[in-house]
Amino acid sequence: MTTPDAHPLDDLIQALRRLPGVGVKSAQRMAFHLLQRDREGAATLARALDTAVQSVQHCTQCHTFTVGRLCAICQDEGRDAARLCVVETPADLAAMERTGAYQGRYYVLMGRLSPLDGVGPRDIGLGDLLARASQGVVQEVILATSFTAEGEATAHAISEALKSRGVHVTRLARGVPIGSELEYVDLGTIAHALSDRR
Amino acid sequence: MTTPDAHPLDDLIQALRRLPGVGVKSAQRMAFHLLQRDREGAATLARALDTAVQSVQHCTQCHTFTVGRLCAICQDEGRDAARLCVVETPADLAAMERTGAYQGRYYVLMGRLSPLDGVGPRDIGLGDLLARASQGVVQEVILATSFTAEGEATAHAISEALKSRGVHVTRLARGVPIGSELEYVDLGTIAHALSDRR
Repeated sequence: MTTPDAHPLDDLIQALRRLPGVGVKSAQRMAFHLLQRDREGAATLARALDTAVQSVQHCTQCHTFTVGRLCAICQDEGRDAARLCVVETPADLAAMERTGAYQGRYYVLMGRLSPLDGVGPRDIGLGDLLARASQGVVQEVILATSFTAEGEATAHAISEALKSRGVHVTRLARGVPIGSELEYVDLGTIAHALSDRR
Repeated sequence: MTTPDAHPLDDLIQALRRLPGVGVKSAQRMAFHLLQRDREGAATLARALDTAVQSVQHCTQCHTFTVGRLCAICQDEGRDAARLCVVETPADLAAMERTGAYQGRYYVLMGRLSPLDGVGPRDIGLGDLLARASQGVVQEVILATSFTAEGEATAHAISEALKSRGVHVTRLARGVPIGSELEYVDLGTIAHALSDRR
C-alpha cells in the first residue's frame, strides 16, 4: 500500500486481515480510513482489544463470554434453574434475552458440531452440558441452535445424548416468520408450519 | 451480544464498528472470532494499531504515509523529478509502483474533491501541489486520479489550476482494460477507446 520504509502500515494491514471476512483490499481501506480520518478510533480499538483479551473469559457454568467467574445470568437467583436453553453463541443468547420471553438459564456451545472443520463434541462442551442436565435440577433442555444443516445436526446429537439419560428435550418451533408473505416463504418452512399447526 | 457484566466485549464491538463497512453484526462476528479462536490475532492487531498511530505520518513532500519526514521515493535521488504523478491514495501509489512502468515522483492527495462530503481543495493539499509543480523542476504532471465522477472532477480542477500556471498536464489513458471482451465493456469506455485510438 505504501513505500517500503513504512513497515508499521503494512503490519497494520496484515493484522486487519486476521479479522473474519476482511481481505487485502478491505484491510487497506480500513487502515487508510483509520490513519487518515480516525486515529482516535484506531487508538480506541487498540485499547478495546487489549482490555477484551485480558479480561473477557468464559463463564464457568454456561460458557458464555463474561468478566469474572460467573456471568450475570448464572449469578441471578431469580432465573428458573429448571429450564436450560442451549444456544450456539453469546450473540444467540443476547437475541433470546432481547425477546424478554425466557426466564430460564443458558448453556452456550461456543460453536456447533462441524466434523469438516474439526469441531467435535468436546469443542462444544457436550460433556459438561450432559453432566449439568443430568444432575436432577434441570427438567427441560430447550435446543435453540441454528436451523441450518450444522445447527440441526448439533441439536440432533445433543437431543439423542440427553434423551438416553432421560432428560426432557424440546426444540424451538419451526414455522413461518412474523411479517412474512406465504408466497415468499420457502417450501420446507411451510411444510413444517403445516405439520406443526396448532 | 452478552450479559450486562461484560462491558469489555461491548466496548470491543463498538470499537470494531468504527472500521469502514463494519456494521453491528459484522462487529459481533469479529469480536466472537477474535476472543474465541484468535486471541493472539487480537493482541497483534492491538499492537499494530498502536504502533501505526504513533509512527505513521505524512511525507512532508508527497503527503503519502511514511515513517519519518520523507518517504523512500522522495528520498530516492534516482527518481525523475521532472515528472509528477498525482494519485488519490497510498494504495493507488502502490498500484502505480507495482507496474514498474513509472520512474518519476508522486503527489498523494489523500482523498479527492467531494463537495458533498465537505472535502475541498485545501483538504487534498491543492495549494502545495500547485506550488511544487510551478517551481520549474516539474515538466509534466500526470493525473492518475480515479476514473469516477469525483476522481474526474478532481482531475479537472487540478488540470485547470495547473494549465493556468503554464504547467504541462496529462491524464492516464482511458480505454479497454487488458483481458476484456468488448461485448462486456461499458459503452462510455468503448467510445473513449475509439476516439483515442492510435
